Amino acid sequence: MNTSYNFIHTLEWTLSTKEQPQESTDATVPGACQLDWAAYRKLPSYSYGTGFLEYEFMEDLDFVYKSVFDNPCPEGDKSVWFVAKGIDYKCSIFLNNKLIARNEGSQTPVEVQLGELLDRDNVLEIEIDRVPLKEGAPKGREQAAEVTKAPVSYGWDWHPRLIPSGIWDEAGLQLRPDSWIDFCDIKYRLSEDYSCADINVECQVSGLGNGCRVKWQLLDEKGKLACSASSESFDLHAKLTSPQLWWTHDQGHPHLYKSVTELIDSKGNLLDRHTANVGFRELRLVLNDGAWDMYPGLPISRPPVPIQIRLNGRNIFAKGTNWVNPEIFPGTIGPHRYEELLEKALSANFNLLRCWGGCMANKDYFYHLCDSYGILVWQEFPLSCNRYGDDRHYLDVLRREATSIVRRLMGHPSILLFCGGNELFNSWSGMDDQSLALRMLDSICYSLCPEIPFLATSPLTGMAHGNYLFRDHESGEDVFSWMRRARHTAYCEFGVSSLAPAEVLRTIIPEDELFPIRKSPSWIAHHAFGAWDDRDFTWFDEETLNHYFRKPKSLEETVNLSGLLQGEGLRCIYEEARRQKPLCSMALCWMFNEPWPTGANNSIVAYPAIPKACFRKVAEACRPVCASASFDRYQWKGGEELTFRLWMLNDSFNTAFYPKSALVILKAPDGSALEVTGWQIPPMVANTNVEGPEVRFPLPDWPGADRFTLEILVAGHPEMDSCYTLSYLPQDC
Amino acid sequence: MNTSYNFIHTLEWTLSTKEQPQESTDATVPGACQLDWAAYRKLPSYSYGTGFLEYEFMEDLDFVYKSVFDNPCPEGDKSVWFVAKGIDYKCSIFLNNKLIARNEGSQTPVEVQLGELLDRDNVLEIEIDRVPLKEGAPKGREQAAEVTKAPVSYGWDWHPRLIPSGIWDEAGLQLRPDSWIDFCDIKYRLSEDYSCADINVECQVSGLGNGCRVKWQLLDEKGKLACSASSESFDLHAKLTSPQLWWTHDQGHPHLYKSVTELIDSKGNLLDRHTANVGFRELRLVLNDGAWDMYPGLPISRPPVPIQIRLNGRNIFAKGTNWVNPEIFPGTIGPHRYEELLEKALSANFNLLRCWGGCMANKDYFYHLCDSYGILVWQEFPLSCNRYGDDRHYLDVLRREATSIVRRLMGHPSILLFCGGNELFNSWSGMDDQSLALRMLDSICYSLCPEIPFLATSPLTGMAHGNYLFRDHESGEDVFSWMRRARHTAYCEFGVSSLAPAEVLRTIIPEDELFPIRKSPSWIAHHAFGAWDDRDFTWFDEETLNHYFRKPKSLEETVNLSGLLQGEGLRCIYEEARRQKPLCSMALCWMFNEPWPTGANNSIVAYPAIPKACFRKVAEACRPVCASASFDRYQWKGGEELTFRLWMLNDSFNTAFYPKSALVILKAPDGSALEVTGWQIPPMVANTNVEGPEVRFPLPDWPGADRFTLEILVAGHPEMDSCYTLSYLPQDC
Repeated sequence: MNTSYNFIHTLEWTLSTKEQPQESTDATVPGACQLDWAAYRKLPSYSYGTGFLEYEFMEDLDFVYKSVFDNPCPEGDKSVWFVAKGIDYKCSIFLNNKLIARNEGSQTPVEVQLGELLDRDNVLEIEIDRVPLKEGAPKGREQAAEVTKAPVSYGWDWHPRLIPSGIWDEAGLQLRPDSWIDFCDIKYRLSEDYSCADINVECQVSGLGNGCRVKWQLLDEKGKLACSASSESFDLHAKLTSPQLWWTHDQGHPHLYKSVTELIDSKGNLLDRHTANVGFRELRLVLNDGAWDMYPGLPISRPPVPIQIRLNGRNIFAKGTNWVNPEIFPGTIGPHRYEELLEKALSANFNLLRCWGGCMANKDYFYHLCDSYGILVWQEFPLSCNRYGDDRHYLDVLRREATSIVRRLMGHPSILLFCGGNELFNSWSGMDDQSLALRMLDSICYSLCPEIPFLATSPLTGMAHGNYLFRDHESGEDVFSWMRRARHTAYCEFGVSSLAPAEVLRTIIPEDELFPIRKSPSWIAHHAFGAWDDRDFTWFDEETLNHYFRKPKSLEETVNLSGLLQGEGLRCIYEEARRQKPLCSMALCWMFNEPWPTGANNSIVAYPAIPKACFRKVAEACRPVCASASFDRYQWKGGEELTFRLWMLNDSFNTAFYPKSALVILKAPDGSALEVTGWQIPPMVANTNVEGPEVRFPLPDWPGADRFTLEILVAGHPEMDSCYTLSYLPQDC
Repeated sequence: MNTSYNFIHTLEWTLSTKEQPQESTDATVPGACQLDWAAYRKLPSYSYGTGFLEYEFMEDLDFVYKSVFDNPCPEGDKSVWFVAKGIDYKCSIFLNNKLIARNEGSQTPVEVQLGELLDRDNVLEIEIDRVPLKEGAPKGREQAAEVTKAPVSYGWDWHPRLIPSGIWDEAGLQLRPDSWIDFCDIKYRLSEDYSCADINVECQVSGLGNGCRVKWQLLDEKGKLACSASSESFDLHAKLTSPQLWWTHDQGHPHLYKSVTELIDSKGNLLDRHTANVGFRELRLVLNDGAWDMYPGLPISRPPVPIQIRLNGRNIFAKGTNWVNPEIFPGTIGPHRYEELLEKALSANFNLLRCWGGCMANKDYFYHLCDSYGILVWQEFPLSCNRYGDDRHYLDVLRREATSIVRRLMGHPSILLFCGGNELFNSWSGMDDQSLALRMLDSICYSLCPEIPFLATSPLTGMAHGNYLFRDHESGEDVFSWMRRARHTAYCEFGVSSLAPAEVLRTIIPEDELFPIRKSPSWIAHHAFGAWDDRDFTWFDEETLNHYFRKPKSLEETVNLSGLLQGEGLRCIYEEARRQKPLCSMALCWMFNEPWPTGANNSIVAYPAIPKACFRKVAEACRPVCASASFDRYQWKGGEELTFRLWMLNDSFNTAFYPKSALVILKAPDGSALEVTGWQIPPMVANTNVEGPEVRFPLPDWPGADRFTLEILVAGHPEMDSCYTLSYLPQDC
């Protein structure tokens, strides 16, 4: 007996539809019915122009996967199983024309013992029901309000309506030993001073199990044995002294240990082996400093909910972003995509990703990388912007799906919290504390991993979502102004839209629609117009561009201006959120990536992994220590007193290498530099911002100019310099 | 075999201490160690003067109950059990010198099979550990932060420090049949139009259980069979068409059915019978009308939590109060006390009692009465004003205790919601959404009765506690003024203090301290001074009395003035909360009753069940339909324009008998009446207040007067009349 029962022997598949079984094509597994069928029917790319509209007829198709295979154990061994890590969404599985399983969900593995049911030659068929659409609901996300499918695929303001189904993760045959490890939970409790970890390894073993024992080892990063245990029960205990702690990349090193659990039979044979990364850290959500003082006096209500992250005893500021599935069809996501995107998240100085509830949970490799890179994960369940009701069948499916997700992810040190889903307590959703789905999710999380915090949804009291534009069209107020009066404990979503890079646009918008940008079918399809809230101008906000700058004359110039505003807007929000520390402890922009090439969107990384122009400014705003200027508006007029306040923003616990002085320079349109002021920076304290002086400086008149630049140069620390490009109105305008 | 296994054969008990086992006295069971020992040691009454201080030494005593009895089944039958419905708090049980059980908690029944352990003559001993005091905590409620005991007994602003322990509920021997019904949960689901109830009866049967079957009947209020079921499984289903719904007394009749479940063995013998009241109603908490609009614009946070009660599809306004244990020693509470208090709650027009988390849950009869009277119950777990931590042992005990409470109470139709406890999310407690005790309590409730709402604590966002005085000493603002600017969805605690009735005071304050009321030991002991928050003036607020009225000259006069302010203050809050409907949906005064005779307190019913002077005004303010005047302050000066707005407050769904007009009369100090204005009341709509005109009326000068009265007389409906007594300042003051 080898230890490879986990290995999945792939099968060859064909795909047909239930309606026309005679028409059939090769199927790619993992993949999606829609992709195979589109290839077979020679449909155009769904990314180009309005191509995705031609995919819609597939919503009415029931697909059938079929695989013909020989019995790998013709002696009638019972050990053959069919295993699929994910089949989306409702399916019936037939072996040699006999129904052997049904499943509903997409994130729970399907495991069926074939064993004695096998003939010499076998036909396995998986019928995938047409995609579920809630009866009576209008076309859109509400059609997903009774399923655990990712609602985003029903159409969102940055996602076309394209609803995947089919075998989207590894699937095939497994040969299982007499006994195997179903799961192995490694829990630990750190002593108060973090000098010791009490470790508990709990295995669930399936199969015969007679006389088996479990051997467990923990190896450090160099492969050296750190501690071990062995037992005939499947519940082991061990103690690790002086564990190397897991930190986020900005706070230290994300130390990982390797756990190896082996199941050994009575004769000493190795039956199964389970390996996992273990990171020792204490993560808590605590009430934000100052929150008790927000509602003084009587009658008294409750303060905001705790959203301050405390990592190994240290209150850290979370700078990050909202992560969405990087492909419309999750079956096509490979390791490389996760790598290139997460490396960009690292380079943006992000320490937290909110895996947004409109999508499904990521594949394992994503969490593995977050563990290794030292990036925290806020993981939501697949509920978003809908009123998910108290229907029993829905709750049963959700219970199974959520249990699978939690069990799969809870061991990752990067998991900061689980969250019921996105914007469920807002008027457009209408769920609340009494919604059974959310009470159940909390209950599941509490029973499996009480040590991991749970949030019912985002935003909760004190936290905020929005705004998503640089400038409010109705009030004319800009982001610099409203961020000054906003007071929230966490900005979990905020964004400024921009166009995709020109080279991306040329691959998705037909030449004749490209410029000038207008409300044409391909631009609409790619979210430049009418994407959100029936506002014509989302997400290509031409009116705002024209408000601040001279009308651009080319696609490239338009893209550049749009990127400039996105960069300055996002920088402003990150920096202002940091200034509001410690009452505020989190800033997560909406959004990081996108699952297809949008024309205009709030993403800062274009599909598949192309940083937009704003990216550098976001990364700068998230540096551990940096100079900052706080303005109360974005546009300034010649002759006016330019007014701003200087700051040093500091989230670092490293007390060495702090700067002593800074110089502020104004760059005129002709490139000449004017010295505005100098600043003797007082001694800095770890993890504490320094508020500097207010500066007033008369703006020269520069006829014909539409912008100017302000630089803060930190003496001896160019890595802390900052530079702002602001909108300029000449005196005679 | 008879069906009386539930019957508990009482035993004779003596009480001694572990330290001096030779000293012993007769014990009253149910009761409390402290009461028996106080009688033995001839201690003074704890209610009189500072008597309770002499009880404190008992905190250091370990008590021992002892009972000597013959084996009731000398043939060695296994069926003999020792059963105690409640032993408070940590105990060890010995039979004939052998340890047979340990227990920790106070609200979980202790059940031990004695059977073969019995001799012919037996000695049962129950060692009660000294009362638990959290190590290192200052003297007071924090000493209860790791136990499930009622924290109130550790000392509160209206409760002396007197910590009970011992056998506080029925205890004795039970003779059990071969099998018996452990519990029987009756769950139902009403159809959307309430025309049909799908009933599910789930029994857990203990003992042999072989060949048993269950027979179930539901009888209506006249004893007529409504529906029935029988099965060999212990899980039965039935359908009841046209159920008579359970309503609160103000909304209809609290219809109750009787469920009878019988366990029958294979020979047809009745083994056990379980009976329960069943009321069919749908109770939900929904978001308050208008709550979505409370935070318009972006960035957006979440609205208040839902606290609007929806009973059988009807949004009702909750008028009620906070209920506390009516005795310091719960073992002494009998049915009559519950009856006399709950009849008073009915006569106050209350439809909701919040059973406050500082105390333990009530005995069964309380809930039985609430079911019958049509009064809703908000039931809290025994956590209050402390930071209950994540300690595993505490969580284990809490899990067992909470499960017992939920299982015992969840079938009562009066149970509106379960709540984690009192003021846990406020700065003096410091718990939050992530506290494991609260996540666990929600999880227990969700698993046992997902249909019953759960609140983590009170107040939650949007809800309010306080204020507790008529007038703020620092700002000088009065309750009329702050209630006008307060905007909350529920006022779950608010109060105005008053002195106890003079006849009560004469029984608790020694003659020589009685008048003038001053900061003397007995008045301090009875909460007139320094009771809360180190404020000297709580709860006898002499400064406020003197601010509004001439200095009283006798005890009786002082009591009367204090009662006048309490009545006018509470009336103002109830009426203003009702005016804020539908955004506001609840007003519960702090507090209804009290567990001993306080000298001054916020209670509206003095110990044991004596309505205070304010009671009538509270009852009037809670009438389904009544006239109301809204003032922005309590004190008015001669010559000023008395300004107020007229209202008809209406929580009734009965659309008949609405009034047409009202007359407003000012009563001068000499008894003469001035007509202020008349009001033609527009047609009224069910459950909707009517806002009337603002009235301005020049106040005459009445030298020497200190109050005046305003009456609203509703034509043809004297039951809707209202009358206010306000403070008056003559022009020359």
